[in-house]
Amino acid sequence: MNFRSDNESPAAPEILAALAAANAGSAAAYGADDASRRLDAVFGELFEAELAVYPVATGTAANALSLAALAPPWGAVYCHPESHANVDECGAPEFFSGGAKLVSVPGEHGRIDPDRLAAMLAATGLHGEHEAMPAALSLTQATEAGAAYAPDETAALAEIAHARGMGVHMDGARLANALARLGCAPADATWRAGVDLLSFGATKNGALAAEAVVDFRPGARDERTRMEMLRRRKRGGHLWSKMRYLSAQLEAYVADGLWLCLAARANAGAARLAAGLEALPGVALLHPVEANEVFVRAAPAVAAALSEAGFAFHPWPGADEAFRLVVPWCVEDAEIDRFAAVAAAAARAR
Amino acid sequence: MNFRSDNESPAAPEILAALAAANAGSAAAYGADDASRRLDAVFGELFEAELAVYPVATGTAANALSLAALAPPWGAVYCHPESHANVDECGAPEFFSGGAKLVSVPGEHGRIDPDRLAAMLAATGLHGEHEAMPAALSLTQATEAGAAYAPDETAALAEIAHARGMGVHMDGARLANALARLGCAPADATWRAGVDLLSFGATKNGALAAEAVVDFRPGARDERTRMEMLRRRKRGGHLWSKMRYLSAQLEAYVADGLWLCLAARANAGAARLAAGLEALPGVALLHPVEANEVFVRAAPAVAAALSEAGFAFHPWPGADEAFRLVVPWCVEDAEIDRFAAVAAAAARAR
Amino acid sequence: MNFRSDNESPAAPEILAALAAANAGSAAAYGADDASRRLDAVFGELFEAELAVYPVATGTAANALSLAALAPPWGAVYCHPESHANVDECGAPEFFSGGAKLVSVPGEHGRIDPDRLAAMLAATGLHGEHEAMPAALSLTQATEAGAAYAPDETAALAEIAHARGMGVHMDGARLANALARLGCAPADATWRAGVDLLSFGATKNGALAAEAVVDFRPGARDERTRMEMLRRRKRGGHLWSKMRYLSAQLEAYVADGLWLCLAARANAGAARLAAGLEALPGVALLHPVEANEVFVRAAPAVAAALSEAGFAFHPWPGADEAFRLVVPWCVEDAEIDRFAAVAAAAARAR
Amino acid sequence: MNFRSDNESPAAPEILAALAAANAGSAAAYGADDASRRLDAVFGELFEAELAVYPVATGTAANALSLAALAPPWGAVYCHPESHANVDECGAPEFFSGGAKLVSVPGEHGRIDPDRLAAMLAATGLHGEHEAMPAALSLTQATEAGAAYAPDETAALAEIAHARGMGVHMDGARLANALARLGCAPADATWRAGVDLLSFGATKNGALAAEAVVDFRPGARDERTRMEMLRRRKRGGHLWSKMRYLSAQLEAYVADGLWLCLAARANAGAARLAAGLEALPGVALLHPVEANEVFVRAAPAVAAALSEAGFAFHPWPGADEAFRLVVPWCVEDAEIDRFAAVAAAAARAR
Repeated sequence: MNFRSDNESPAAPEILAALAAANAGSAAAYGADDASRRLDAVFGELFEAELAVYPVATGTAANALSLAALAPPWGAVYCHPESHANVDECGAPEFFSGGAKLVSVPGEHGRIDPDRLAAMLAATGLHGEHEAMPAALSLTQATEAGAAYAPDETAALAEIAHARGMGVHMDGARLANALARLGCAPADATWRAGVDLLSFGATKNGALAAEAVVDFRPGARDERTRMEMLRRRKRGGHLWSKMRYLSAQLEAYVADGLWLCLAARANAGAARLAAGLEALPGVALLHPVEANEVFVRAAPAVAAALSEAGFAFHPWPGADEAFRLVVPWCVEDAEIDRFAAVAAAAARAR
Repeated sequence: MNFRSDNESPAAPEILAALAAANAGSAAAYGADDASRRLDAVFGELFEAELAVYPVATGTAANALSLAALAPPWGAVYCHPESHANVDECGAPEFFSGGAKLVSVPGEHGRIDPDRLAAMLAATGLHGEHEAMPAALSLTQATEAGAAYAPDETAALAEIAHARGMGVHMDGARLANALARLGCAPADATWRAGVDLLSFGATKNGALAAEAVVDFRPGARDERTRMEMLRRRKRGGHLWSKMRYLSAQLEAYVADGLWLCLAARANAGAARLAAGLEALPGVALLHPVEANEVFVRAAPAVAAALSEAGFAFHPWPGADEAFRLVVPWCVEDAEIDRFAAVAAAAARAR
Repeated sequence: MNFRSDNESPAAPEILAALAAANAGSAAAYGADDASRRLDAVFGELFEAELAVYPVATGTAANALSLAALAPPWGAVYCHPESHANVDECGAPEFFSGGAKLVSVPGEHGRIDPDRLAAMLAATGLHGEHEAMPAALSLTQATEAGAAYAPDETAALAEIAHARGMGVHMDGARLANALARLGCAPADATWRAGVDLLSFGATKNGALAAEAVVDFRPGARDERTRMEMLRRRKRGGHLWSKMRYLSAQLEAYVADGLWLCLAARANAGAARLAAGLEALPGVALLHPVEANEVFVRAAPAVAAALSEAGFAFHPWPGADEAFRLVVPWCVEDAEIDRFAAVAAAAARAR
Repeated sequence: MNFRSDNESPAAPEILAALAAANAGSAAAYGADDASRRLDAVFGELFEAELAVYPVATGTAANALSLAALAPPWGAVYCHPESHANVDECGAPEFFSGGAKLVSVPGEHGRIDPDRLAAMLAATGLHGEHEAMPAALSLTQATEAGAAYAPDETAALAEIAHARGMGVHMDGARLANALARLGCAPADATWRAGVDLLSFGATKNGALAAEAVVDFRPGARDERTRMEMLRRRKRGGHLWSKMRYLSAQLEAYVADGLWLCLAARANAGAARLAAGLEALPGVALLHPVEANEVFVRAAPAVAAALSEAGFAFHPWPGADEAFRLVVPWCVEDAEIDRFAAVAAAAARAR
């Protein structure tokens, strides 16, 4: 079983079927097809909001477009030091924004510490045009450490940002996993908690390649705002000519709660993995398991035994003898059991 | 029948089948999967060259990445005034290059006139750092007017550019249609004629969303060059996490000559349309039909009769009473016949 | 006498004296000094407007900052094909705007043709996010051909632009020369005629290095607008730490009408040159002489005789046997007379 | 006496005199004048190197142009968290580089800690195109805390950077002060210690507005390298049309050791200030005084007494009850004595 990354998982059969269904006959290009035109309404109902949806193929594109919409070239984006936007996108936010500055705000378990954020913001605004302007806050949900921001945690951070005139972005590459854990309405974890722009992820959780910028801002459907977002997407090369194949994935992903169902399955696998590991001597979890990721510290012999038994996972930099397990939507219970057994044998043999 | 754009056509069944086949089990992310790793070899064989392939989802991305690789921010890109890069990409080349300038070089039927190009280049270089530096030539194959550059035409233009130290880009959104017409080896129409970077198109001709930057430059596979191209793609948000779904499309597209077969079918439809129209009184073709596009001037009654009969197409700006017919790979012979009959009746009724 | 460019002229003694006067003791940095703080009021009085002034050292900086303030990265700037911003700034407007597209609108004598502008704009807006958005009109006053836009000519063009929601920029590198010719109030040639942002030039006409962006837009002094302009200038590297030396030049330049006086002197020299040349056999003026530039077509022997007699000037590309004479503020009457005599002898000797 | 910033000091009389001398008659524009053409040789002799000099008006421009020349848009620039480029330039390096990422490397007294640098670099290069590429190291000489890197300290840092293929930039806004302290040859503190590009500062130390990018790289005078640097400067709006006024300042600044003489005077003033303060009860220096800046911690009553006595200085953020004294080139000994007396009285009265 492959626990290296949910990016290595296949697409869910429902989504592949939707692609095949979308393939019948001709359809208007560049988002004028029926599926694409339905998206605002479909997501609007899902999120109980008057929003606008901009599908793209990658999470990096969704993040970079969102942050560029919130931060001018002279703006500063406050984000966690380990956030994808900060360390895994080769400067995409800087590129799309025309040179904005990403500022790291630390915090436990991938969560931004609200006191640190407030303190850092309080130290800005003293040097006029010499300093970058605080423009955006970017939160990752679930965090890079597999934790989930509760709605009130998100709201507390968003309030700090809004009080300074900043916009709030949420990188929801694993939003489904966070929601499956939190059990709240999508609206509660996003715009009701102050999120302005959301990178809505589907790829990791069962799509082939489908993400979306979801714009919750007031006036998101105004011509002026919409044209700006459309032009940003187009000149980034992210407007699909045959958009139906992007929109069909997104529509199938949220239909009948598929997204939350797939995420719940992955989360359950992670929880079972964590429960098994936690009980073992010499094994520790580095972070609370609130989504589909498990960060483990264990003697090298444990990792070695697991590798030998055919389990794939990544060692984790930043902590000694640590590794990360990402549980995909297509997890099999038997493999979780087998993993637990191998780990237990190795841990007890020490 | 829909003649509005090949972007409105569905995907070929072979390509959809390849997607389904690629969906088995887990696969390494970000291009480390088997299909993606095969691409350099697959395209190398196809083009008889030591090349590097960078799949992306859109033609705008392929064009912008290619032009940015050839032109520094202070560079000038010479292209046809009607080229996609110049008028249909909302400034994507300017964005990806960091501000390069697109310079229009006119010519008949969408082809750049070599004498005009030579004359324009001869007038540069006199004002040192005050002027933009001629950096790239961009040719569209087939052209926006449905013509195909013969290999010696491409070579003549490339020679002018190379003599000035410029790089040569080919926007091959409809490369297959041009090749199906020219009947030459892919290498002859591209790198042997002096093309350095190619936007290899598949979407219009049967893929869902799959294009590629093909790098023919010497040293294309060198670590340094490759890392630059990879970083450009990544920070543009164009690196798919589940890259297998992009690579599988491309692999299926070129397997067993599928791409040329689909293109030949579309071209044949266009040729038949053209032949039928050309013979009619009061109807004229605006451009030679050398690919899958037909540009027609006819009395408004002809266009009206065709619309009424259920044919969809776009009026064409820039010429009075003109419209464009784009024939997709999935063209049906019977519809071509029906179109001809309706057009003939309308033209003769005048 | 040097007629090559007004950029080769020295600084006026009044301006050098102002620099020396500004050098007494310490002064607040970055524009908080007294001279800098007076500028809004000084220029406000001069232009009879509630404006904001941003001094910079070069005309390219003033143009690029102005155009970037008017055009988003996906915007199009409409300008004359021969305008400085288009051909002499190595892509500075593209750089500062983040990739805007400069679109050429031709016209006689460096003036943009309003009918052409209207026709070109009428052809835009049909392709949604695929095309760049018309965002700014840039006029050069006096034009690159030495002509001056009359206030109603400027107003007619500005009206076309404003009707499309575009902003209007004036490159006033030689504004003083145009005003000296037009004889109207500075306000009449600028904001009353629809100009939103002005590149106010002083360097060519007697300063060492001093230009300014003058913001006539409603709300120009609002905190938000001002901070955006200040941040654009700062991150362009155009905020002087010892700003007093920039502001002192500008203050001296406009004090007691010095700027118009210097420009009138240069214009008068050009008029006398033109009158002398016009009367000669085989000599023709290429453009009306409405500022301090004279464009001449004459037999090569005439140019040769003038060079031999010690006059310096540039041959002019784009027309055969043509050369340009730029008369600086420090022109000497005797030299104009001597020039006329040499030219006359050479023209009559043919 | 004003100790707020050396940016508030006037220009040295020798430099103002050079401006006046440069004002005689006409001179070729855009750097083709005699003074500008001499600069490579003048600086070449000063630095004992085959270098190229690019004058600009501000330190921000010099830094941003240098860093952009070293770091591609996907590059990372390693610098001290308090460096001017990182916190005082409103994103100019990000702007000029097209989106490079500034990475903070802490260290005492404004110096980058070589062990931290090495450790941070060792953690890079593991994620391929996902991460920004380490491209440049930027050192500030003297540091923002008033310390001076000894040549071997610079060399140790440069060696770490070069081993990773990175370029080395030195922000020498106060280079003269550092050199006056170190007593070494300019070459020893710069290129012999591994500096590739230098922002050579003159404004703070006696010029009106004059800085320069000094290119020490092999091939700095090659056509290709030079044209790239010239084009970067031009499109940044930093090419003066009347360049003579920039070059004349620089030439006078380094003639007969003026620059080091002015800096030595400022340093001596700072040393005397420091000596006086250090001896007082309840007063501490936050950083070693190795240039012209003194960072002091003292009871609020001391600062209040000094302010009341007419001394101007800035409180210093980041430390309680701290303030900064910057001693300008035009320091008067009597004022230093008076300052010491006032401080002593206030400190002892507590």
